[in-house]
Amino acid sequence: MTFDQWTRQVLDRVESALDHYLPAADVLPAPLHDAMRYAVMGGGKRVRPLLCHAAGELTDATPEALDAAACALEMIHVYSLVHDDMPCMDDDDMRRGKPTVHVKYDEPTALLVGDALQSQAFITLTADVLDARHQASLVRELALASGSIGMAGGQAIDLASVGHSLTREQLETMHRLKTGALLRAAVRMGALAGETPSAESLAALDRYAAAVGLAFQVVDDILDVTADSATLGKTAGKDAKDGKPTYVSIIGLDASRALAQQLRADAHAALEPFGARAQRLAELADLVVNRVS
Amino acid sequence: MTFDQWTRQVLDRVESALDHYLPAADVLPAPLHDAMRYAVMGGGKRVRPLLCHAAGELTDATPEALDAAACALEMIHVYSLVHDDMPCMDDDDMRRGKPTVHVKYDEPTALLVGDALQSQAFITLTADVLDARHQASLVRELALASGSIGMAGGQAIDLASVGHSLTREQLETMHRLKTGALLRAAVRMGALAGETPSAESLAALDRYAAAVGLAFQVVDDILDVTADSATLGKTAGKDAKDGKPTYVSIIGLDASRALAQQLRADAHAALEPFGARAQRLAELADLVVNRVS
Repeated sequence: MTFDQWTRQVLDRVESALDHYLPAADVLPAPLHDAMRYAVMGGGKRVRPLLCHAAGELTDATPEALDAAACALEMIHVYSLVHDDMPCMDDDDMRRGKPTVHVKYDEPTALLVGDALQSQAFITLTADVLDARHQASLVRELALASGSIGMAGGQAIDLASVGHSLTREQLETMHRLKTGALLRAAVRMGALAGETPSAESLAALDRYAAAVGLAFQVVDDILDVTADSATLGKTAGKDAKDGKPTYVSIIGLDASRALAQQLRADAHAALEPFGARAQRLAELADLVVNRVS
Repeated sequence: MTFDQWTRQVLDRVESALDHYLPAADVLPAPLHDAMRYAVMGGGKRVRPLLCHAAGELTDATPEALDAAACALEMIHVYSLVHDDMPCMDDDDMRRGKPTVHVKYDEPTALLVGDALQSQAFITLTADVLDARHQASLVRELALASGSIGMAGGQAIDLASVGHSLTREQLETMHRLKTGALLRAAVRMGALAGETPSAESLAALDRYAAAVGLAFQVVDDILDVTADSATLGKTAGKDAKDGKPTYVSIIGLDASRALAQQLRADAHAALEPFGARAQRLAELADLVVNRVS
């Protein structure tokens, strides 16, 4: 199977699974469920689900277990986007090529969509395609990655940094929490959804995820200044306009591009112990670095 | 032990456990952790933790397991208050006798405090005082009670109902989700934290929780018109001012008082199968109905 075929197959599975794990749009309260589906379905690059499925190949996790983990990760990611786009945060009108939730619906709906998607992620992780031991370990991974010492904490640091100049180290800390923690969880949860990985395997996956997570952000910062809004599906140039520190603003465009390539190499190196079983993870590192949107 | 002594003992345990299960205020990002602690610590009636500990007496749950479940419930409850108080929702300045989080800090902080407290609840439920089977079952209970078919769904219905006249049945549906679901989860999680309860026991506890949950709301509506803000620790008369349908506005004050007493009797009746072991649950039903704030 080519990487493109594998990717398409996983994305099809995940899209069906998201449809399955989200409450139907006619279940009460229907307007909330409609808005949750609007936020989640049919959009985004699904990077976390892809990482999760790819990592699951290392531990023979079942596709059904990986679907549940992948959907939970995507629900958390989407909730964070919905809240992040709200007027009191980044105040963004466009996301994944369509109006943001608070624009399409209203602010209270956006708040509740995010809140309910976080709950839905943990409902999804306790579906009976996983046994209790797997449920418990995946819940803990996801909750730690989402909360105040993970994604939400990174958001808090990000907000506090607007208009301030950050050192490269401070910027890295912020991103390690804001986007890195959930990308790391995607890799770890994929592996944890199957046979118990060794501590060495998890450590190697952590090194891979750290490199991919940082690369993801560096490329985001590059695209914010080099791509247009239509290609990105969100407002381009917004970070610069908002006075947010980025890799491009701190080390420049060329050095940012070189850094992304170095991180790609780091990610590949971390996968060496796994040999050919890590092929999809290696290809995903390339995808993250070479993407144009 | 008298009920007052038991209550004080549980509240002391829960306060210590909350302190333990919340990240310390000097852990990075410190401002977020400080705000999470401001929202959670030293306030509120802790009704859900009390119900949880009382129900745990039916199945010999360990105090440590009940502390974890109680803290998770309270974190979810507080997150919902923090988000509910935000300007785009109820826009309230006062809660538990002190400024609300978005007033004391700012709106983005309030949003992130709520988000992170929800994650923290699931981190807490996967602490190792519970085995994997208990962790998984408690996570599922809490996530279902919090999400779109529980508390968040009730909020959505509540928002949609402002300025509309509701029937008593519609009002009941809204409250069954908005506050009832989490109160029910408090009772069920207490019982599920110990030896596996029978289906009959859980059904009886559901009947108890339904009566107490509704009574809680009826009494809230009564107090909104009869108590003052200082006693309540939040703005009195706000529901009436906001045009929110309440039991008092639909059936009147006297009928609301009679309904609260009827629900108290229903709660007691549901507990009959448990005999003396359900003493604390019975006393809590009385507390909920007879409270003055």
